[in-house]
Amino acid sequence: MKVRSVLGFVICFGLSAQTLPLMPLPASVHESPGAVAITSAFTLSVSGAGATDPRIKSAAVRTLARLARQTGIPIAAQTPTTAPNATLRIVVERRDHKAPQRLGDNESYSLQAAGDHVTLSADEPLGALRGLETFLQLVQQNQLGSPGFSVPHGDIRDQPRFPWRGLSLDVSRHFIPLDGIERTIDGLAAVKLNVLHWHLSDDQGFRVESRKYPRLQKYGSDGLFYTQSEIRAVIVYAWERGVRIIPEFDMPGHSTSWLAAYPNLSSSSAPLNVVHEFGDPTGVMDPTKESTYRFLEGFLGEMAKLFPDEYFHIGGDEVSAKVWTNEPHIREYMTAHHLANAAALQAYFNKRVEKILAKNHKRMEGWDEIFQPDIPKTILIQSWRGEKSLAAAARAGYTGILSAGYYLDLMQPASQHYAVDPLRGEAATLTPEEKKLIIGGEAAMWEELATAENIDAKLWPRLAAIAERFWSPDTTNDVTSMYTRLDTVNHWLEWIGLQQRSSLDLMLHRLAPTDSVGPLRTFASVLEPVKGYERHRNHYGASSAFNRLVDAIPPEADAARNFRKAVESYLAAPSAAGADRLRNQLDAWSKNAIAIRPLLQRESLLTEDLPVAGALTAQCQLGDDALTYLASAAPAGWKMRATASLKDASTHYASLLIAIAPAIQNLIDAVPAAD
Amino acid sequence: MKVRSVLGFVICFGLSAQTLPLMPLPASVHESPGAVAITSAFTLSVSGAGATDPRIKSAAVRTLARLARQTGIPIAAQTPTTAPNATLRIVVERRDHKAPQRLGDNESYSLQAAGDHVTLSADEPLGALRGLETFLQLVQQNQLGSPGFSVPHGDIRDQPRFPWRGLSLDVSRHFIPLDGIERTIDGLAAVKLNVLHWHLSDDQGFRVESRKYPRLQKYGSDGLFYTQSEIRAVIVYAWERGVRIIPEFDMPGHSTSWLAAYPNLSSSSAPLNVVHEFGDPTGVMDPTKESTYRFLEGFLGEMAKLFPDEYFHIGGDEVSAKVWTNEPHIREYMTAHHLANAAALQAYFNKRVEKILAKNHKRMEGWDEIFQPDIPKTILIQSWRGEKSLAAAARAGYTGILSAGYYLDLMQPASQHYAVDPLRGEAATLTPEEKKLIIGGEAAMWEELATAENIDAKLWPRLAAIAERFWSPDTTNDVTSMYTRLDTVNHWLEWIGLQQRSSLDLMLHRLAPTDSVGPLRTFASVLEPVKGYERHRNHYGASSAFNRLVDAIPPEADAARNFRKAVESYLAAPSAAGADRLRNQLDAWSKNAIAIRPLLQRESLLTEDLPVAGALTAQCQLGDDALTYLASAAPAGWKMRATASLKDASTHYASLLIAIAPAIQNLIDAVPAAD
Repeated sequence: MKVRSVLGFVICFGLSAQTLPLMPLPASVHESPGAVAITSAFTLSVSGAGATDPRIKSAAVRTLARLARQTGIPIAAQTPTTAPNATLRIVVERRDHKAPQRLGDNESYSLQAAGDHVTLSADEPLGALRGLETFLQLVQQNQLGSPGFSVPHGDIRDQPRFPWRGLSLDVSRHFIPLDGIERTIDGLAAVKLNVLHWHLSDDQGFRVESRKYPRLQKYGSDGLFYTQSEIRAVIVYAWERGVRIIPEFDMPGHSTSWLAAYPNLSSSSAPLNVVHEFGDPTGVMDPTKESTYRFLEGFLGEMAKLFPDEYFHIGGDEVSAKVWTNEPHIREYMTAHHLANAAALQAYFNKRVEKILAKNHKRMEGWDEIFQPDIPKTILIQSWRGEKSLAAAARAGYTGILSAGYYLDLMQPASQHYAVDPLRGEAATLTPEEKKLIIGGEAAMWEELATAENIDAKLWPRLAAIAERFWSPDTTNDVTSMYTRLDTVNHWLEWIGLQQRSSLDLMLHRLAPTDSVGPLRTFASVLEPVKGYERHRNHYGASSAFNRLVDAIPPEADAARNFRKAVESYLAAPSAAGADRLRNQLDAWSKNAIAIRPLLQRESLLTEDLPVAGALTAQCQLGDDALTYLASAAPAGWKMRATASLKDASTHYASLLIAIAPAIQNLIDAVPAAD
Repeated sequence: MKVRSVLGFVICFGLSAQTLPLMPLPASVHESPGAVAITSAFTLSVSGAGATDPRIKSAAVRTLARLARQTGIPIAAQTPTTAPNATLRIVVERRDHKAPQRLGDNESYSLQAAGDHVTLSADEPLGALRGLETFLQLVQQNQLGSPGFSVPHGDIRDQPRFPWRGLSLDVSRHFIPLDGIERTIDGLAAVKLNVLHWHLSDDQGFRVESRKYPRLQKYGSDGLFYTQSEIRAVIVYAWERGVRIIPEFDMPGHSTSWLAAYPNLSSSSAPLNVVHEFGDPTGVMDPTKESTYRFLEGFLGEMAKLFPDEYFHIGGDEVSAKVWTNEPHIREYMTAHHLANAAALQAYFNKRVEKILAKNHKRMEGWDEIFQPDIPKTILIQSWRGEKSLAAAARAGYTGILSAGYYLDLMQPASQHYAVDPLRGEAATLTPEEKKLIIGGEAAMWEELATAENIDAKLWPRLAAIAERFWSPDTTNDVTSMYTRLDTVNHWLEWIGLQQRSSLDLMLHRLAPTDSVGPLRTFASVLEPVKGYERHRNHYGASSAFNRLVDAIPPEADAARNFRKAVESYLAAPSAAGADRLRNQLDAWSKNAIAIRPLLQRESLLTEDLPVAGALTAQCQLGDDALTYLASAAPAGWKMRATASLKDASTHYASLLIAIAPAIQNLIDAVPAAD
């Protein structure tokens, strides 16, 4: 058996279809010649003391169905037996009937494919769940052989780098129905993430049924919320897939929806309604009234029973100091209790809430703001402010996870998130003991500009790259390999039922008649939504339609990234053929952008994209000129003029940007300056 | 208001995006200028005595959700009120709390769009369901105006041509899970079909839970069957959408799955197992034993209660005479009872079964074979043999529906099914009274070569064209208009959740790595599955994988049909530009077929398609040559050689045919013969 390091392995096969499409990359992969055939005679066995865990049985049933779906081979549903000659033999050493799953539960596993079978070994059931995902990723169509599918021979040993690997999902700004939540959990499990942090309340909507305080869902939502029985079902669904559910009820800020339902909770006496627009938070709970804590005692007691996880997220972010300090009765309370400022008042509030949670056997989790003096060390800090803030907390002895750098709603490329690491930057300067306090990270998806329709495309496939950051060894940093595998995993995820491609495809079909969808797709293939908070500055709200071109494209334009790589290759080793290829590509985009003008003029939802088409044509022309001048010489002043023109042609219209602009600039920059 | 005939209307707007995308075409459409805007303020009201029908309420809720999905506009869920100023005002004249729905229930409706609202009027609830589908089809993106959606002003009056408009769906050969059945019902309702004829048993599997005879599902299936509670839920689901569910339990032939479970029912004493291969039927029930009828009395009594429809289908097709006449005890019985032949014995059996059904208040339905002397006139005959057989039954006073010509499993183009009419051919010679006995038709989908994965693509969009044949006036015959509207409706159906495009797209992604799916799709765009029963002759069975290219393409290649039309246009009015366009298209297909050879060589499931790629290149070259000789002169003997070469290049490989061949032949034929 030939032993190769993971990275060596990937490099060895280059970017061919033969690259093992594993994401996250396992801790170690040894490959050997040969393969285990997957046929309709496929069988599965389970043994070991841990085989009786209900998660194993349900995972086995799912694996059979998914294998059939992936391959198109009719693989019969079967009750796993302990038969010694099965194709896939799952051995789980220890019985571990844990519910709920806990932080740090053993997730390690190994996979050996040899002869005519695969052996999946795990210490505990959770590891087997992780290994089954790797097994399914390994199933590939045979190359140059008899028609069918197989798993390559080899040996994989794997365990996670961080124990806390999550997604924080906002369902307040736009509600995500149950099927979307379940799909998301399937996706998390597929890429070995283990936490769904469910942001269940915010100014714009309270999304959980409270039986004790039913006005919360009645007046705090537009009728869209999860019932308690639905939540219980989701928790079981997630547990079966190795995913913990952490609820977040944001307090004392981001709580207008509560205050609309129970005005007495509010700091101010002004009546509040659920917020219908997206923007700055407004209402804040009153931390000075004992009735507030009585309410929270009742509410948190109820929710602590509903959500079994040890951790409970109270938000705590972005409290408006003014809402408090404008109120005379709060100023008086602060004086009387020697609370110097709003932060001190929030610290007081947090400590009271922490005590309620502790009484309910919960550890408190919150955003950076809960890191304040005197708060018990049992809490967990989720950092949206960044590595510095996280490192400071670790130095003070607090456990934390990183979310800054993983905000999927900012429409950044996968590579940008991939480059962020909970233990880099300021955290790299921590002592080994302090570093241990940084236990992982969470991607975050805020839903102001995402809807139930396109949520999959906002999450996937980028979330898989973040999952690799949290799971794989810290030496896993090859961006080219990441993108190659991400592309395969992107399609693999659709076998599980994720809709990141199909949902956008339907949205394009809404925008254009069938015979124009192809050209529209070509046009859109080099466009990306504007980044960061630029689009948030527009006026959006509950009645806004997210049915424009910017809503129907992925955050990252693969075609533009590939073009940039082609430009880099060409500039590194110029050739006439290389120039022709780039020129042909630019020409095709340009011609298409001209050809679809009548479509954009006619279809009312596309008309706003007309200037984008014009700008794309201009960018392509600049690229073409640059290629000409690279081979000859540019007129005096051309580079400066071209750079200015490119800047003009990079104006954002319709919340879109043209993603080939940086590559065009590279071409312009490479033109020799005229004397 | 400008009044136009339906066909005139379509022609008036030509084939532009402005053609109203209605399918089936309504009985009359009058259009006027202007439109009703669809915005997030959309509201819906219900009034009239029929407003209390539960179907209306559930249809209203669905309409709101579908409207939101189609447009991407957040339209709030709302309880329909009687508010006078709603955007969509549904008026249902008569209360009609009918369950089950019955043959001939009033389905007429009218739609008036004027000012700022749409009025949907119907005599009875069923008509309102039909009208809501038309309303949703009318919602289109604004053209050249403010961004958004609208319904054009106008007046539609509509009712069906035939009262029985169905789909016969085989779930024995390949089981279709519940979600597939529900999706199919959604599709039927969307195109105004009103019968799902559920072929629930056959040699290969018994698909219903019997509580009286549980061995039927236990030993008569592979574990895949519908429980009674699932069936009840499907019946309610269908009723809410205006679709009747007619069960078929095929007897006395096509019944091996019963005989495997209850051998005593069999004509022969040889033990039988559920059939795992697809082919000729084997087991036949024994019509000479009283125990057979006692069993059927018990079974049909149970099923008559489960399925509420007045009609009950007993199959009755393709009984092997030999299985009976080979048995001495059956021959003796026939002699003793003066039954001259197997047909007479089956007639005897049918009459006994009909009596059992009549006792259970059911009307018997069956395939052509049940039309035998002395059978009561209350039965309904479904003709798979053709119009002659149907006409003969009508002349004898029997009611019938046509299925011959509508077999979707034979992979014929929509135009071919569209040309078949229950009242053409032999039926055209019937008297008006006899014609009234022909009450409609049913498409049929047999599942030997279709699976749960690609069933939507086997049914849709072709089934929509058949639905138009059954619903629209018999003057609706413009094939060009049909295809234009079919294309739009094809995509519209995906908003409802049908997967005819997305499922095949996923299957292509199984066959090729992502970066090769585009070229594979281009290659596949001119391919079709072989027609009729050619593919059935291969050896397929329960363990066959239907994951090849032939399984991942639609029955009809739109690109090939469009090319044929382009060739026809060119030959009618030749021009250099027209020749260039054809040549460029052929060149693109040819180059692509060459470029994907390495892919086909490498990926094991695609290797069988290599000769197809070669043949496609050859066909393109022949077309190119023909275009050259059309402009100049062909060498002596070229036409004959070219025709022979085209025939060679039309050999079927991998169950595929190249659908541009007829157009290439047209080009060759048009070359002037050399002297």
